[in-house]
Amino acid sequence: MAVHLEKFFEPRSVAVIGASSTPHKPGNDVVRNILANEYSGKLYLVNPKGGDILGITVCRSVQELPEGIDLAIIILPAHVNAQTIRECAVRGIKSIVLAAGGFAEVDNKGQALQEDLLSAIQETGARVIGPNTSGHTSTPHNFTSSFFPLGKIPRGNISYITQTGNFATHTMRYIMSGENFGVARFVGLGNKVDVEESEVLEYYAGDPETKAIFIYLESFKRPQRFLEIASEITRVKPVILLKGGRTAEGSRAAVAHTAALASDDRIVDGALKRAGITRIYKYSHLFLAAKALAAMPLPKGNRVSFMAPSGAMLVVLTDLCQQDLGLSVPDLEEPTRERLQEISPPYIRMRNPVDIWPSAALNGVEYAYREGMEAVLKDPMIDAVVPILMLTDETGVPPLDFIIELVRLYPEKPIYVTFSGDKKHMEASKAFLEPRGVPTFPLIEEPFEVLSILNQCRKAMERA
Amino acid sequence: MAVHLEKFFEPRSVAVIGASSTPHKPGNDVVRNILANEYSGKLYLVNPKGGDILGITVCRSVQELPEGIDLAIIILPAHVNAQTIRECAVRGIKSIVLAAGGFAEVDNKGQALQEDLLSAIQETGARVIGPNTSGHTSTPHNFTSSFFPLGKIPRGNISYITQTGNFATHTMRYIMSGENFGVARFVGLGNKVDVEESEVLEYYAGDPETKAIFIYLESFKRPQRFLEIASEITRVKPVILLKGGRTAEGSRAAVAHTAALASDDRIVDGALKRAGITRIYKYSHLFLAAKALAAMPLPKGNRVSFMAPSGAMLVVLTDLCQQDLGLSVPDLEEPTRERLQEISPPYIRMRNPVDIWPSAALNGVEYAYREGMEAVLKDPMIDAVVPILMLTDETGVPPLDFIIELVRLYPEKPIYVTFSGDKKHMEASKAFLEPRGVPTFPLIEEPFEVLSILNQCRKAMERA
Repeated sequence: MAVHLEKFFEPRSVAVIGASSTPHKPGNDVVRNILANEYSGKLYLVNPKGGDILGITVCRSVQELPEGIDLAIIILPAHVNAQTIRECAVRGIKSIVLAAGGFAEVDNKGQALQEDLLSAIQETGARVIGPNTSGHTSTPHNFTSSFFPLGKIPRGNISYITQTGNFATHTMRYIMSGENFGVARFVGLGNKVDVEESEVLEYYAGDPETKAIFIYLESFKRPQRFLEIASEITRVKPVILLKGGRTAEGSRAAVAHTAALASDDRIVDGALKRAGITRIYKYSHLFLAAKALAAMPLPKGNRVSFMAPSGAMLVVLTDLCQQDLGLSVPDLEEPTRERLQEISPPYIRMRNPVDIWPSAALNGVEYAYREGMEAVLKDPMIDAVVPILMLTDETGVPPLDFIIELVRLYPEKPIYVTFSGDKKHMEASKAFLEPRGVPTFPLIEEPFEVLSILNQCRKAMERA
Repeated sequence: MAVHLEKFFEPRSVAVIGASSTPHKPGNDVVRNILANEYSGKLYLVNPKGGDILGITVCRSVQELPEGIDLAIIILPAHVNAQTIRECAVRGIKSIVLAAGGFAEVDNKGQALQEDLLSAIQETGARVIGPNTSGHTSTPHNFTSSFFPLGKIPRGNISYITQTGNFATHTMRYIMSGENFGVARFVGLGNKVDVEESEVLEYYAGDPETKAIFIYLESFKRPQRFLEIASEITRVKPVILLKGGRTAEGSRAAVAHTAALASDDRIVDGALKRAGITRIYKYSHLFLAAKALAAMPLPKGNRVSFMAPSGAMLVVLTDLCQQDLGLSVPDLEEPTRERLQEISPPYIRMRNPVDIWPSAALNGVEYAYREGMEAVLKDPMIDAVVPILMLTDETGVPPLDFIIELVRLYPEKPIYVTFSGDKKHMEASKAFLEPRGVPTFPLIEEPFEVLSILNQCRKAMERA
């Protein structure tokens, strides 16, 4: 089974059926995307008008294609999709992405079209992603079938399975422009007429390019199989899932979206937990937790140290960690406390969390954060460190190379950065740190919410 | 009592005792702040060296000051504070801000100094904010006692009471540079040796400049009085509180911060609820909910409509609203659904939440959002509207004047904007919308979290 999906993720040759010469049409944008991602396999385009598109000669029909192309992307109206699958099969093309919407997610007529598709798939033995998908991507193979203009998608180690087109469209634009991490693979499953989440999960399980798997689903097509695979893979890689349709209202929205029928959420919840899957409830965590994992190791425990230029932040973040997030803010070892005391004025008694303002006022922001962070990074009681950097014109904005250096020196402990102060300095610091592998978060609660998610992943990996 | 606080918030004359000619010292920064805020009352500076500071002639001692100055800001070492209060009293100065730290929050010696202060206050009848405060601010009177360089603080209708210096320092910098709303008053209470939260709350209660009150506290000095005042004012204005020290660990941090002793959190919780106070748990909500209230009315109910360019967003945000946030995503009235259907391709059945992508693809982003938003704003079933604007180069970024126009046309319904797409367009849209009174939020969950907080405020106002 997994062998078959290799033609989707590692295609040596690809045909775009319904390629278009008209800019901004999906059949044109998909070709631009493939070229922008520097796909190195063979690329064939099909359009009855012939001619050429973006410098590539166009075949007039599927019949003109050579035998045995690995993958076809069909961007044609819904009613001709089944027939085109059959034509592809004749040319030996057995892996197919169907972009068109207008199937079961719309109406009864669409439902009938989707049943036709299913017949074509059963007759031909083709494997199909979609319909109603905005595509899939495989950066290690410089390939995407997305028809939303993305440009070159940055390569990374995070893979997505989504029952929505978002992660191939505007959410991917946001990840690329706002979150600065790369992806390995992503698939928009669409209506899941054939290829479904458990198969993709199995492929990602064995994929050395994939460090962590993020999933958005509205329904499970083969729940038992999905949970079986997840039970194994969650011991090795984090599997983080956002399940849409927890509520009756949410389920109604899911039916309108991908014709998904939701199950009772309490049953789902218990099963996911047993399979070691970490459940999230916010869409934004699909990229905030991914960013945290992309550059940093999973923390080895739930024990966090953080430093803030504000007693109030220390208090409320301690409350948040202990009360709401399952994180511990433990006492530091004696040598750590001594070191923190050395860098601080004598009137303050240093502990965890670390009140960094007095030291910053005395020694400057760079010295205080650098020495404070190094002290707690060295402490065997601490698994992850969150500096809340004070960045204002008045207190000075130091070069942040010291954070890059600390990441190098203590590679086993994740460092997540957040800020207080002037927005321009926050943005500049984010722009400096993230391309160098240090995730940053605009609001001070976010690194802790993410650590809570990662702590659940770790517990899943360590379970009996 | 409240009359006395007027000298803090509406001082006609102010003395800075411990003014400094050295840039970046608190005694210098406080003078710069007062000048930057265009304080129009009389300003006196005291420093034994005399001379002048920033063009203002300096008195050599408190004794040289004229009689009856409204307010003194004392920026002197802890051990001379009590004596200086007595000297002020001799000159008829009875309202005093004490900036110095090094009192009960530090050690036994500091505790003794704080007891001296208390004696001086009792002897003289002075009213004192602090010690260990970074100051207070009153923008309607162009005045601040903050010694953290802030520049001109934007005037607005939000007032803060905080048992931390943050809201006069780097958090205020963040609000000014990143959140684009103005404040009316704020007070950092510090160690609360005299003036405490219930008095400030009473002043804000009667303050026509204050639309909503945000509070950060680690302890209640006169809990019964505080709750009595809150019980009344919460029927008229939102009172939103973040209580630090919910957990044992958080309490330990609070003791180190302001020597505050926390109470049992469950007792606190019940009492706050009865008094109509809306409790929050995230520091960031102190400014995100404030931003939402600054420019928009309180929603009249919990019924929200939102539009997103993604089925997944519709599903997970519906789940979030219904399951976690106490918000309703109700069915729309027939004419609203008909209008939404008119602006959309026929294959999609329009409902709440609003799937705006098909209409945007057919009619363009501006038309789809403008017409979609207006339809739901008109609907009597809807109390607040959240557009999740799709902003990418490819789909086009329209001028957003239409949102300003909709705010003008439907002033009774709050509109909160959030985004998906390219970060540069999100930032540009925020920079356009917020100075024009439309709050925006970087993550799609935030407007709903804020609406949930405001819905609790509304319920408090409507309670029997």
